[in-house]
Amino acid sequence: SSSSNLIRATLFPGDGIGPEIAESVKQVFTAADVPIEWEEHYVGTEVDPRTQSFVTWESLESVRVNKVGLKGPMATPIGKGHRSLNLTLRKELNLYANVRPCYSLPGYKTRYDDVNLVTIRENTEGEYSGLEHQVVRGVVESLKIITRQASLRVAEYAFYYAKAHGRQRVSAVHKANIMQKTDGLFLKCCREVAEKYPEIKYEEVVIDNCCMMLVKNPTLFDVLVMPNLYGDIISDLCAGLIGGLGLTPSLNIGEGGIALAEAVHGSAPDIAGKNLANPTALLLSAVSMLHHLDLNEKADQIQDAVLKTIAEGKYRTGDLGGSSTTTEFTKAIIDHL
Amino acid sequence: SSSSNLIRATLFPGDGIGPEIAESVKQVFTAADVPIEWEEHYVGTEVDPRTQSFVTWESLESVRVNKVGLKGPMATPIGKGHRSLNLTLRKELNLYANVRPCYSLPGYKTRYDDVNLVTIRENTEGEYSGLEHQVVRGVVESLKIITRQASLRVAEYAFYYAKAHGRQRVSAVHKANIMQKTDGLFLKCCREVAEKYPEIKYEEVVIDNCCMMLVKNPTLFDVLVMPNLYGDIISDLCAGLIGGLGLTPSLNIGEGGIALAEAVHGSAPDIAGKNLANPTALLLSAVSMLHHLDLNEKADQIQDAVLKTIAEGKYRTGDLGGSSTTTEFTKAIIDHL
Ligand SMILES: CC(C)[C@H](C(=O)O)[C@@H](O)C(=O)O
Ligand SMILES: CC(C)[C@H](C(=O)O)[C@@H](O)C(=O)O
Repeated sequence: SSSSNLIRATLFPGDGIGPEIAESVKQVFTAADVPIEWEEHYVGTEVDPRTQSFVTWESLESVRVNKVGLKGPMATPIGKGHRSLNLTLRKELNLYANVRPCYSLPGYKTRYDDVNLVTIRENTEGEYSGLEHQVVRGVVESLKIITRQASLRVAEYAFYYAKAHGRQRVSAVHKANIMQKTDGLFLKCCREVAEKYPEIKYEEVVIDNCCMMLVKNPTLFDVLVMPNLYGDIISDLCAGLIGGLGLTPSLNIGEGGIALAEAVHGSAPDIAGKNLANPTALLLSAVSMLHHLDLNEKADQIQDAVLKTIAEGKYRTGDLGGSSTTTEFTKAIIDHL
Repeated sequence: SSSSNLIRATLFPGDGIGPEIAESVKQVFTAADVPIEWEEHYVGTEVDPRTQSFVTWESLESVRVNKVGLKGPMATPIGKGHRSLNLTLRKELNLYANVRPCYSLPGYKTRYDDVNLVTIRENTEGEYSGLEHQVVRGVVESLKIITRQASLRVAEYAFYYAKAHGRQRVSAVHKANIMQKTDGLFLKCCREVAEKYPEIKYEEVVIDNCCMMLVKNPTLFDVLVMPNLYGDIISDLCAGLIGGLGLTPSLNIGEGGIALAEAVHGSAPDIAGKNLANPTALLLSAVSMLHHLDLNEKADQIQDAVLKTIAEGKYRTGDLGGSSTTTEFTKAIIDHL
């Protein structure tokens, strides 16, 4: 029953709890009348030689054509001779910026109030080059690669994002006091872009100091942009401030206008299939996807319903201290739409 | 007035607030009758060609001979053609393990209670190799070097420390899912050492997840051991949990039984010379030094006096929300001895 008014989006339910939380998103989208038609793709059962991964070429093609997708957790199968699923997606789709808004959920208490920041992580190079060598026995090296092209690209995105979302400040996170050439180049690119956005404040902060400031007072930060590994570390730290990866959305921006939203938590095989999973991270990632598609009204409507349900506290999944099933929590969200 | 019963220790008061907080340590040591004779050395005013740094060769020789020292903050002078002071000390003295105990100070409230962990950081290699190249214009690389020798050495120290201090568990922090060869070698070395300590639990934790767990529940950790940059990041994060670098001691362990204690905070030039600095981090570092020298009774006596003074809250420096001067705070500590 496809219609020309519908936007086609790829859906990777993923492994473990993936199908259950994806089902939750589908139900909420249907209830909210979101004009999206899902094209579902599953992780393959064999290595696809074109991707060297269990991620099939067809599924990548689907994202390339649709330009938008949503992804649940994928557990990289154990064994040699293939690439990690997440890294395959980033590489093949050139997902150069990973955007993670991180805000305190009203009514869900942690040690921190009023967290409201966004981490923007370079997602294609840096410490993730995959270039490692044994120099001599007992001495190994790995190469961190920083390029002007990728640094400018993610810096551009960070400032574009800050401006589009009415944010005041971009902080570049680095360790250029030690890695003067690599992180130095990253900073140089950020400075170049910053000059084009005089209305956005720009500052630089060393990663160790940044982590200390984040745990002491996260409200000091607004938008953070950084190389790959620092982004990996800091985005998880920030998720911890507001309750963990089960609550934080993530959106990957790729070349050619591609956007792939994803829940960054694990596939939780221990509770898979038991109707216990919390779909919040995938739902809020889907909200990020809707914002990216400029379906802002639908996005806000769904986000409000999710946040209200959590704030009320009557229906919460086990990870948030409640005893609701995934379907009960989903139904409560739908009732709040 | 040197006496044969006195242990000679090198003292680098350092820059900025360094001389004031070093004075505080000297007064407390004198009041507590600590059998230590200080040999003071200052950062040079010119680059010493033998160290390529403002750190003089004579001062390094002093630590090599005394085998023990205490260091205040050093501000690396601006300009080219010389090495960072901190890195010079680490390199020339082969300070291979940086040990930072991190515990909640009784009576000084932060968001976290009952933090009680120790980070042990490999301090000589990894991302701090200084090897960086421009490959082509706009493409730079830096080399992370992990060796079996340095990894075994720091792992040995971590388990030795855990056992000596009655700690239960060592967690190796890594990103071996991405840097399989470098961080993989680090883990392999930790596993080898762990086998020799069946009474100490050993576990491995990925750095991003570790940071999330630390902000959610730091009491999950006991002793953490890790490569250089992760140690830089995580030790500052942990310091943030209990109030910041002004409160956390640090001890560097070098080859040949050398130990150099240091306050890892900055030199705070804005308040230098104003009798406003908090000497706690340097005092507690001096306590670590005393433990290293097996002067445990003196160490405990001084630590108790510092903690009691802070807990009482009557005399606190500005950074802890009080209005005491450095000398008032120091006097209060001496009164508590
Ligand atoms: C699973 C792992 C390879 C991945 C990463 O390191 O990027 C994860 O931590 C993430 O943040 O998406
Ligand atoms: C000042 C800087 C070079 C140093 C480091 O990165 O090691 C500092 O952060 C530290 O932890 O001692």
